[in-house]
Amino acid sequence: MKPIILTGDRPTGPLHLGHYIGSLKNRVILQETHKQYLIIADAQAMTDNFKDPQMIRENILEVALDYLAVGIDPTLSTIFVQSMIPELFEATFYFLNLVTVARLERNPTVKSEIAQKNFEKNLPAGFLTYPVSQAADILCFHADLVPVGDDQNPMIEQTNEIAQRFNHLYQKEFFKKVKALGGHYGRLPGIDGKAKMSKSLGNSIQLSEPYEQIKKKVQKMYTDPHHLHIDDPGQVEGNVVFTFLDAFDPDAEEILRLKEHYRRGGLGDGVLKQRLTQVLEEVIAPIRARRSEFAKDKGEVLRLCRKGSEEARQVVATTVTEMKSIMGVGTF
Amino acid sequence: MKPIILTGDRPTGPLHLGHYIGSLKNRVILQETHKQYLIIADAQAMTDNFKDPQMIRENILEVALDYLAVGIDPTLSTIFVQSMIPELFEATFYFLNLVTVARLERNPTVKSEIAQKNFEKNLPAGFLTYPVSQAADILCFHADLVPVGDDQNPMIEQTNEIAQRFNHLYQKEFFKKVKALGGHYGRLPGIDGKAKMSKSLGNSIQLSEPYEQIKKKVQKMYTDPHHLHIDDPGQVEGNVVFTFLDAFDPDAEEILRLKEHYRRGGLGDGVLKQRLTQVLEEVIAPIRARRSEFAKDKGEVLRLCRKGSEEARQVVATTVTEMKSIMGVGTF
Repeated sequence: MKPIILTGDRPTGPLHLGHYIGSLKNRVILQETHKQYLIIADAQAMTDNFKDPQMIRENILEVALDYLAVGIDPTLSTIFVQSMIPELFEATFYFLNLVTVARLERNPTVKSEIAQKNFEKNLPAGFLTYPVSQAADILCFHADLVPVGDDQNPMIEQTNEIAQRFNHLYQKEFFKKVKALGGHYGRLPGIDGKAKMSKSLGNSIQLSEPYEQIKKKVQKMYTDPHHLHIDDPGQVEGNVVFTFLDAFDPDAEEILRLKEHYRRGGLGDGVLKQRLTQVLEEVIAPIRARRSEFAKDKGEVLRLCRKGSEEARQVVATTVTEMKSIMGVGTF
Repeated sequence: MKPIILTGDRPTGPLHLGHYIGSLKNRVILQETHKQYLIIADAQAMTDNFKDPQMIRENILEVALDYLAVGIDPTLSTIFVQSMIPELFEATFYFLNLVTVARLERNPTVKSEIAQKNFEKNLPAGFLTYPVSQAADILCFHADLVPVGDDQNPMIEQTNEIAQRFNHLYQKEFFKKVKALGGHYGRLPGIDGKAKMSKSLGNSIQLSEPYEQIKKKVQKMYTDPHHLHIDDPGQVEGNVVFTFLDAFDPDAEEILRLKEHYRRGGLGDGVLKQRLTQVLEEVIAPIRARRSEFAKDKGEVLRLCRKGSEEARQVVATTVTEMKSIMGVGTF
């Protein structure tokens, strides 16, 4: 049996190059050798967007389109929508007993998100407890691996703590230890050089970006602010154009040469930006083409999501039934 | 249409006289004029008994037997088991977004329970959030009324806050305001005079108590410790025998006379205890008889619980489907 992967996205916007290099590209490779479940986590997205469910609903289709566009094969990967699987909330309910409030409050990921969202004073209970829901997502599929960025390791730890607590309390090795699958490309910066590419920060390049937009965005890209004349020596570190070339240009040797030239002086930003525009267009063009092909029949994409959700629901329902039977709940 | 009542018990032990006078007796009357849903809240009982699910499981039958024994008519009232209705946990999940952690921490009922259970340092998240699950139980049945003791008013307030928040956020008057149904007998003390009758405190008289046990327990009952000789004047206030006579003896006039006599002196505890034993036997005997009749076919009782759970599940599933459609979740 293939090892099982659980991964996915909150549907809060169409996906961008940061998602592509950070996870999507890998998923296309991993689906060949792993049983991959892709969660479109709309219910989890509600924990910090409960005032705007429409935005979430609309983005379910966008994310599904992005998945198909990058090459996710629905016969290999199961794409599903979290809110279609009520049993996940049932598992979450019982897991909430296995975690203390203090433990949730110590979660570094949640802590920094709370600060970021100004939730300090009015922290919704659903937001504090979302790592328990994430644990349910992972454990209900008996996932072996969860691909994570460095900032998501606490999520894996929390999941394994819940699994261990369950196995110990109810005296059965039911949930296995899940492993973080690292080694991915880290975080792609925004075109403004800010640490995180994000649609809401307006510094992203979407996977569906038209060529003219790519060109425009690369033109605006942050380089070396002190590199005023072509002949000046330029700085490569923190220069977003080079960060992107490193990430997306297949010709690593040429990039090395260009970096040396840039450092010496005599290489203008314009040349580099032209190159990057072409490189990005080569990445995005086939994605964009497939995306617009799939977008012609949105009903079919939604049908795929429903079918995937039904398939995923069966797996989860089986796990939750077994879980309840082990606890001895709901089996009077 | 009859007004809807949601009420019930955590299955943590067979029910006792405190439950009878405080709620069960009224439920038998209310079922004639109201649509009554009786929740056996096993999942909620897990929030502070997650280490002992077997105890909960075994007591589901005990509580159901007690219901039938006191005269709950399953053709009028719907008896159901909470864990059989996964949609309740789905509603709970979305409601958790509508309540802040600070608000839950301020809940006076939960606060005093946390202290009582020594949960201060290791408060399970499931216990802090159980009022949200209670709100889901109430709202998913569109209950008009919830019978409560004085200490449960915060639960009604919390429920109405969630309902209002939902209606306001998602712009539809979907959940109505639920009313507390008070006017019940307050809290029956234990036979030791302690404020609360409770099986775990060993000061209770069960609804299934055999006559000899009733007699024994009444003999041990706390009276007036200064009433050493029959001729001494005795105190009626805080005298548990009189508290019980007030609660269960149908002849209020005679009790008034007995109180006067006791205060004057010349009336022994023995006479009163004999009377109380008979009074309690008259209350319990028919309950005990019906209980042992029902207990002959436990399979039938469990079948009733399953049937009630199916019926209740349909109501809840309809509410949750509508609720999700109003939020615009799971309806892509």
